[in-house]
Amino acid sequence: MTAVAPSVTTGPIRGSHKAYLDGPDGLRVPVRRIELSTGEHHDVYDTSGPYTDDTAPIDLAAGLPPLRAPWITAREPGTQLAYARAGLITPEMRFAAIREGVDAELVRSEVAAGRAVVPANRRHPESEPMVIGKRFLVKVNANIGNSAVSSSIEDEVEKMVWATRWGADTVMDLSTGRNITETRECILRNSPVPIGTVPIYQALEKAGGDPAKLSWELYRDVVVEQCEQGVDYMTVHAGVLLRYVPLTAKRVTGIVSRGGSIMAAWCLAHHRESFLYTRFEELCDILRAYDVTFSLGDGLRPGSIADANDEAQLAELRTLGELTAVARSKDVQVMIEGPGHVPLHKIDENVRLEEEWCGGAPFYTLGPLATDIAPGYDHITSAIGAARIAQRGTAMLCYVTPKEHLGLPDRDDVKTGVITYKIAAHAADLAKEHPRAQARDDALSAARFEFRWLDQFHLSLDPDTALAFHDETLPAEPAKTAHFCSMCGPKFCSMRITQDVRDYAEANGLTTVAAIEAGMAEKAEEFTESGGRINLPLA
Amino acid sequence: MTAVAPSVTTGPIRGSHKAYLDGPDGLRVPVRRIELSTGEHHDVYDTSGPYTDDTAPIDLAAGLPPLRAPWITAREPGTQLAYARAGLITPEMRFAAIREGVDAELVRSEVAAGRAVVPANRRHPESEPMVIGKRFLVKVNANIGNSAVSSSIEDEVEKMVWATRWGADTVMDLSTGRNITETRECILRNSPVPIGTVPIYQALEKAGGDPAKLSWELYRDVVVEQCEQGVDYMTVHAGVLLRYVPLTAKRVTGIVSRGGSIMAAWCLAHHRESFLYTRFEELCDILRAYDVTFSLGDGLRPGSIADANDEAQLAELRTLGELTAVARSKDVQVMIEGPGHVPLHKIDENVRLEEEWCGGAPFYTLGPLATDIAPGYDHITSAIGAARIAQRGTAMLCYVTPKEHLGLPDRDDVKTGVITYKIAAHAADLAKEHPRAQARDDALSAARFEFRWLDQFHLSLDPDTALAFHDETLPAEPAKTAHFCSMCGPKFCSMRITQDVRDYAEANGLTTVAAIEAGMAEKAEEFTESGGRINLPLA
Repeated sequence: MTAVAPSVTTGPIRGSHKAYLDGPDGLRVPVRRIELSTGEHHDVYDTSGPYTDDTAPIDLAAGLPPLRAPWITAREPGTQLAYARAGLITPEMRFAAIREGVDAELVRSEVAAGRAVVPANRRHPESEPMVIGKRFLVKVNANIGNSAVSSSIEDEVEKMVWATRWGADTVMDLSTGRNITETRECILRNSPVPIGTVPIYQALEKAGGDPAKLSWELYRDVVVEQCEQGVDYMTVHAGVLLRYVPLTAKRVTGIVSRGGSIMAAWCLAHHRESFLYTRFEELCDILRAYDVTFSLGDGLRPGSIADANDEAQLAELRTLGELTAVARSKDVQVMIEGPGHVPLHKIDENVRLEEEWCGGAPFYTLGPLATDIAPGYDHITSAIGAARIAQRGTAMLCYVTPKEHLGLPDRDDVKTGVITYKIAAHAADLAKEHPRAQARDDALSAARFEFRWLDQFHLSLDPDTALAFHDETLPAEPAKTAHFCSMCGPKFCSMRITQDVRDYAEANGLTTVAAIEAGMAEKAEEFTESGGRINLPLA
Repeated sequence: MTAVAPSVTTGPIRGSHKAYLDGPDGLRVPVRRIELSTGEHHDVYDTSGPYTDDTAPIDLAAGLPPLRAPWITAREPGTQLAYARAGLITPEMRFAAIREGVDAELVRSEVAAGRAVVPANRRHPESEPMVIGKRFLVKVNANIGNSAVSSSIEDEVEKMVWATRWGADTVMDLSTGRNITETRECILRNSPVPIGTVPIYQALEKAGGDPAKLSWELYRDVVVEQCEQGVDYMTVHAGVLLRYVPLTAKRVTGIVSRGGSIMAAWCLAHHRESFLYTRFEELCDILRAYDVTFSLGDGLRPGSIADANDEAQLAELRTLGELTAVARSKDVQVMIEGPGHVPLHKIDENVRLEEEWCGGAPFYTLGPLATDIAPGYDHITSAIGAARIAQRGTAMLCYVTPKEHLGLPDRDDVKTGVITYKIAAHAADLAKEHPRAQARDDALSAARFEFRWLDQFHLSLDPDTALAFHDETLPAEPAKTAHFCSMCGPKFCSMRITQDVRDYAEANGLTTVAAIEAGMAEKAEEFTESGGRINLPLA
């Protein structure tokens, strides 16, 4: 354990508090309970862990309590996939099902079919189990991690806590700079969500930064170290084959995946097939022992609109399908990573081919960005693509921050990225008609219509920003109960006028179409007499 | 003319300068010319008017030069629709065609068919003509305007200049506060883009804020005043019929359109059909005399996910179709306004029904927001919906700013809204495979891949923000030519590694799949001898 004791953000999100739902066998499943001024409350899915629980002691040096430890020690080693195939519902599946509001058997059957994963390394007992699959709520991953030119352990642990506070379902530590092992250890021991990594980064560090000096043995040792630490899923770019490298030669942006470019360089330098591919079965055996989930990386994903859905990308995807079958045959859980930069009309094909070639394994995509022309706003260009690809079936979205293509995201960027992706994910949940998704929209809109401003803010994804924006133009406390805002002012507030209309209709018995039409017939004569002229037939 | 002399933002956007394309008959069509470090340049559509031309004198008191005045005085009064139907290509159509890079005949035929509009009031000669229709680039409107509790003439004129600087194709002045007439006059005389209004707002002001005190005569006088001033298109909520009001009674958010709620209140208070509907033919005659375009307002648009595509909304849309036919019979150009709040899976139906019921009139939508739960981020929730609805055929998108639902947007919000909507519009242009759309993505991505950082920023929608974000983590000048950024640092830069891979492949004759495979056969024996073990068949 590192001696560093960073400070992180704690305390509940404005207008809410941590609550727990009781499940069978003593399960306590966290929710964020939003209190409303009506006396009701609205519970939402909560990824934030004990940090938002006012009653939970936080000690970063000690780490979070090992919630899953008794479940893990009580059973034989085995992956969630193995248990699911054996017909067993694990506590992890049950916990995830309660969070989703679905039957635990649905979680088990989707995991058994390979259409969902429960990333839960036996060595990361601190994590609160969750499920990733198209039948469940769309999930969001936040990437954090330092680079050689930026950031510290303290910064990265706070980014993890901060990202999960705002809704990140998993966090990937992509550190490539100093103190990689210590940073990851501190993150893992304090993370309430599954942690993913890309082991080739640490391997390249150990190889002195020269891809040609990488080897299977060096890589394997890094993977074992990370498995031991508790990493829940690992990106492995095992589909970047030597013969695919020339397919990228004519691309506008070549290979934009770090892992993909590293492996391409290795393959070409040695003129050999990638060791990630040739040693894939051995790798499966290692991951199975810890129940680490594969996230088969798209090392040849397109990095520009011009390169979308090209031969290199699709050739790799076919290989990922082949590897998925191998992993599943060894009871190892698998997700498939997806692009990248894809114009809107080419997004659906990505989901269709992934599902067909990879046996329905959960798709986990980076955006995709729907255009290349907006650096500084790529959280938005990519949220547009992400909402679409999730609507079509992508199970988890990797966020993109405003700093994409420009620099390392800071804490503010992390929040913006997470909130933006919660929007994309929720838009997809609505479009997929997830049974519980619309309740929050309805509750917020009802609050909006009834001028319950604080309820509206508290029900939103980011109550602090909503309140701050309202304060900017109408800061006084009475404005929080006013029947208008600065956008329209009191006379032009459509919602106030609508209330007046409803009151008037109610008072005059004009609440139905029949009543209106009866009244119109009565008025018609008087109307004409008064000089009214009807130029159009009233249909 | 008002005595106010506000100051506005002038000068070219970073990395570019104003240029003009010469057309027939002395037409000079503005473009923004982005200079690249390669010595080439890239021209982009330019909405910013003379303000970004270093050589143009700007005098807000005098207004912009009346570009269109000679064309207008040289011809008989008549609408663009009338000319198009007569087979005549006006200078306005020709100008717009050059901006779009299409044949002028395409503009004429689309206008003649009612599938496109060229909003160009004879009294607004300062505007640079443009075309709105699904066969052309997707356009963006920016709403500005004060309210009773906020803003001034100075602020609003600067917002107009600022919005067009960043790409707004039209601007709507929705002022409802003080000095409505003076604000509009100052905006019109200085606007290089068409200006839209909602005359019922000024009418309501004149009626002392009481919808029941409105009358056709009062409204007509306001419309004539605004036509005389030069307003190019007007939102008219003529489809809010008395009998539709009860259809909104069970809605979660009732009537959220200001104009819709005002007319509903009038109809109910008088128990009469809306004067906007009964006097619609007279209104057509007024608009025709100036060639003002109708923007038939969706007064009953849904204001929440729960209310999307409901009976009230669709009943009104049918009526708008009926009114479209009336307007066209009088040679008046028509757009149709659309929602609002719509979940992703219900968006396509909006376009389909609008095109079917309204004879293919250009659709002009407000977003739609794909979820209700993110106040403070509604530029993003709505860009997700906007990109989709534009991909399906919406011709113009009305922006939404981060302040939506919370307060009046300030200058920063206006820019964020415009850039966000340029992203949505461009994503749709790409998805529609607009012939010239992808060139900018390709140019920017090539610059990115070649580490031409400044070219990348200059080609982006917002060069200032891209540069500022890059500066945040690597501020020094050498970083602008470095072959890495702070995201990955030098060793992990995929693009640098890809360049190395390409150089290596080139030097070793490994640039084709055939060469790779020949080399692999050769290496296979050596590979096995060296201890390599292949567990998977190399397909």
